[in-house]
Amino acid sequence: MNALAPGAVIGILGGGQLGRMLATAAARLGFDVHIFTDETDSPAARVAARTIVADYDDAAALAAFARGVGVVTSEFENVPAATAEALIGAGAIVRPNPRVLAAAQDRIDEKTLFQSLGIDTAPFAPVETRAGLDRALDAIGMPAILKTRRLGYDGKGQARIMTPAEADGGFAAMAGQPAILEGFCAFEREVSMVAARGADGAFACYDLVENVHEGGILRRTTAPARCAGEIGARAADIARRVADALDYVGVIAIEFFLMADGSLIANEMAPRVHNSGHWTLDACACDQFEQHIRAVAGWALGPTDRLCDAEMTNLIGDDALAWERYAADPSARLHLYGKREARPGRKMGHVTRLFPRG
Amino acid sequence: MNALAPGAVIGILGGGQLGRMLATAAARLGFDVHIFTDETDSPAARVAARTIVADYDDAAALAAFARGVGVVTSEFENVPAATAEALIGAGAIVRPNPRVLAAAQDRIDEKTLFQSLGIDTAPFAPVETRAGLDRALDAIGMPAILKTRRLGYDGKGQARIMTPAEADGGFAAMAGQPAILEGFCAFEREVSMVAARGADGAFACYDLVENVHEGGILRRTTAPARCAGEIGARAADIARRVADALDYVGVIAIEFFLMADGSLIANEMAPRVHNSGHWTLDACACDQFEQHIRAVAGWALGPTDRLCDAEMTNLIGDDALAWERYAADPSARLHLYGKREARPGRKMGHVTRLFPRG
Repeated sequence: MNALAPGAVIGILGGGQLGRMLATAAARLGFDVHIFTDETDSPAARVAARTIVADYDDAAALAAFARGVGVVTSEFENVPAATAEALIGAGAIVRPNPRVLAAAQDRIDEKTLFQSLGIDTAPFAPVETRAGLDRALDAIGMPAILKTRRLGYDGKGQARIMTPAEADGGFAAMAGQPAILEGFCAFEREVSMVAARGADGAFACYDLVENVHEGGILRRTTAPARCAGEIGARAADIARRVADALDYVGVIAIEFFLMADGSLIANEMAPRVHNSGHWTLDACACDQFEQHIRAVAGWALGPTDRLCDAEMTNLIGDDALAWERYAADPSARLHLYGKREARPGRKMGHVTRLFPRG
Repeated sequence: MNALAPGAVIGILGGGQLGRMLATAAARLGFDVHIFTDETDSPAARVAARTIVADYDDAAALAAFARGVGVVTSEFENVPAATAEALIGAGAIVRPNPRVLAAAQDRIDEKTLFQSLGIDTAPFAPVETRAGLDRALDAIGMPAILKTRRLGYDGKGQARIMTPAEADGGFAAMAGQPAILEGFCAFEREVSMVAARGADGAFACYDLVENVHEGGILRRTTAPARCAGEIGARAADIARRVADALDYVGVIAIEFFLMADGSLIANEMAPRVHNSGHWTLDACACDQFEQHIRAVAGWALGPTDRLCDAEMTNLIGDDALAWERYAADPSARLHLYGKREARPGRKMGHVTRLFPRG
């Protein structure tokens, strides 16, 4: 397709904070936004020109959505394959392409893709039965982490197995779902690369950043990562190989374990804008949300230079109750997502502090 | 009133690009936005949670709007006094207060306010009749500019009178409306000060900027103005005096003529975010739109430091057809307003170029 002209409609699957920030970025470029979500009163709907609230398997609603938009993208990777197929069947251009969703939705497919591209991963084995878990533990050793193959995020659907005695509990936590056992990586740091590939194959990436998770949820991102530029270049090369292999269009994030010897172990990828890229809103001329819109609209990618150093902290659950303190702190750039209820573990907003480039 | 908590609703009168950029700034702080406009399919409506389309004298619609919002503000200064009164009558808090609108809507009241605060203006005289125009021309001399007292913007409702022979044509151009004759200021430059006053009386201002108008419409803003810091300090002091005198809450802009001797002549004020402040979107941590939302919500004002130098160019009418060129230029930050039709003289967007601080 040609580049979408301003005034065209960007369709976004999902109504959460990522959709909200994508929608305001699209508006800045002169686009209208239509949201498709199964959630009423969603954060993204309140900044969109139009919202369709329906189930992701509602073929008629998907067809109506497809007819109204110039391109469809998504704020989450767990879009059902049938949803993407229905949209394409109704004539929509879907970016990134659904093949990407499939690779990102299944931890075994994802790691297999990484390995096929020569990208290091933790050792892993599929687990479907309790006996299979024992075989996998024998092969991989302990400590290890058992995860559901599909639909995991923010640490949900995961169980750490430190000793054989924990195998029963871990297996039970999978609730019968197909799982993957991953060898535990004694990493020095967690880092991530947020990059973008344009419809023309152009590639651009932000600086490698460093992440701290608490309870499986991202707590803090520091930009840039403290490690040397050569490691960032390797991470960028990996992101480019993945994006090229998938004929990817849009922003993609890859999370890595950085090992003591400087090697990078790819942990997982997100075929979308990513929490570890939120710092770009305040520290880059073209943030990851505008970058994603540019890519899916067929525009040239924007500049990814880091104008200043940044530290982004998520406001999780009741953290957001301190909004007035952050609002009064001139060194804090406050972003709130418009969620009605501050449930524990729920990402309510984030705060970015800026520093002169180190 | 106490500071509005995130989740509250900001009501905005007007659906144009200023409302659109205010709405996305409010969303970033976790607010919902309701727009009241007499325009269907307006740029701001497409990024707002709710829009009421009605005439500005529709008492029932205004009352419904007032009931749904925590505070009302405006993207334009020509809100009818009766509209503001109706909103207040329906229980709304209106910021800035309607007394400010009155002062900004009438060029004589505006200049009288400036003079009462010891702020220099061009010489001026009211003009209601053809004979009155002759008397005013005698008093003020030529060249002079005849303007309607009310409802002028972007050079509309103005006539330059260079010689007595142009008096007839100038008077006719006023179409019978009350007018003001202003002495012509042979200025060195046009500069403007965009400032903010919080609900607590706190004051903050951005750097003084320099403006170039073409055909009465702002073409380009350069930040900072080339003139010395002392002039900026004087402009800031003037803005503070005006804001304090009006018990102003929100962003206010004052346009000045900078004379060869370094003196500042106040030309007009805008009780709202201002086109000459658009550069702050890309060059300041807290842009003028967030600043205005912070002020009217009763929050602390944000930082106004200039992170880099900037040049903002308006895209007027067909200028916006070159969007693809701007989109592909990594040094250009493109902002488009979502207007459906590129009429001559219509502000369709703007482009900001950033430079390291000089």
